[in-house]
This record gives sequence, structure tokens and C-alpha cells, in this order.
Amino acid sequence: MRALLVVAHGSRREASNDEVRALSEAVAARDTGLYDKVSCAFLELAEPSIPAGLEALIGAGMRDITVVPYFLSAGRHVAEDIPAEVAKVTAPENVRIRIAPYVGRSGSMADLLLEQGRTTA
Amino acid sequence: MRALLVVAHGSRREASNDEVRALSEAVAARDTGLYDKVSCAFLELAEPSIPAGLEALIGAGMRDITVVPYFLSAGRHVAEDIPAEVAKVTAPENVRIRIAPYVGRSGSMADLLLEQGRTTA
Repeated sequence: MRALLVVAHGSRREASNDEVRALSEAVAARDTGLYDKVSCAFLELAEPSIPAGLEALIGAGMRDITVVPYFLSAGRHVAEDIPAEVAKVTAPENVRIRIAPYVGRSGSMADLLLEQGRTTA
Repeated sequence: MRALLVVAHGSRREASNDEVRALSEAVAARDTGLYDKVSCAFLELAEPSIPAGLEALIGAGMRDITVVPYFLSAGRHVAEDIPAEVAKVTAPENVRIRIAPYVGRSGSMADLLLEQGRTTA
């Protein structure tokens, strides 16, 4: 059972957190067969926390969990804080948790920007 | 003559600003025929500023400029600060400046996240 956990910074502006929730639902709706569950968690300012998000996935039977940092640059949050939050979870031996590169590092970001440039009014 | 201006927040961490510069170079290298010039600018903490970035493009003969906010959520920066910075530029009558939706709003972001989840070690 495989899961994807989209991890965002979290905002005091609840609409921003809801954007992340909607995005993780959009990922789940892709129905690629890659993941049995897709959810999201927040580094700070919003719920669930990263440990709570991971524990919910483990509790739901997920055994291979990939954390994707929804961040544009490789600052302290990506380099240190997210790994530290992930490390707070004592996963059973049969559970594997991996952290993917942050989205800003994606080779497809340049294409997404080009596409976005064409969506002006 | 058309141009794309990638606008990021800007960081005290120069490596993050360099990531944005490299990304705008990657966009330019796509050679789609859509833009004659692709460059980047920063809302704060890094150079060039948004007005300086726009003025450089206008000075280089660009007449149709699309600003793409390299932001993940629609906070104050996207809703107010970027339009305010763009409005500081008094463009000649024959120059059109448009602001595209921020990248977090892209319908392709869900696919990018899925792809990113597959790039773990």
C-alpha cells in the first residue's frame, strides 16, 4: 500500500491551506494507480502536522510513503525542518518513508511556467 | 517582440535567487518560439526589482510582456504586491503588460507532484 504526502509550509490564511488540500485531492483524483492514498500535511500554522499526517497514513495501512515538499526553493525548511519532522515518526519496520525533491527542483517547472504564461486574460 | 518575466519573492539566501535565475534560463532555453526574451525579477530582497526587470525588457524592445508569479499560493504578494509593483512602470502606449495566474494555480501542478514523487532515491 503506497501513499503520497504533499507537505506544504502552512499559512495563517486558511484559503492558502485549502488550496493545498484541493491540490492533494486533485493529485488523488488523477487515479494513476501509483498510490492508494494521497493526503497533505503542513510544516507549521495548519493541520495536520507532518507527524500526524504520516501517522494517519501508517494507521491506514500504508507501507511505502513518499513525502513531496511543496516548496519552490531549497531553504532551511526543505533541507532541515521537513526531514526533522519526518524523523519524529517512529515507523514500524515494514514501513518505508522517503522524501522526494521539492517541487521547485522539478525539470518540468520550466514547462509549467511557459504554459502558465499562456493563460493570461 | 514578446517577453516572459518570471517574478519570484526573493530571498536573503542567494542560492534561492540563483535557482530562480537558473529556472528562467531553463525557460528561455526551451526555444518554443513564444518569447523573444525570458528573464526574472524579484518582489523583494533580490535584484532586479519588478519595475527594473520590466524596464529592461521594454528597453530591449519588448512590446508584449507576460509576468508569471512564481508563487504557490494566492496571498497578499500575488493579489496586491505584484500588481502594485507592475503598476509602478509607466509603459509606452504600444507596450502591453499582463500578469498571468501564479504557478500554484496551474492545473498541471498535480501532475508535477506525481512526477516528483517518483524521483525519490
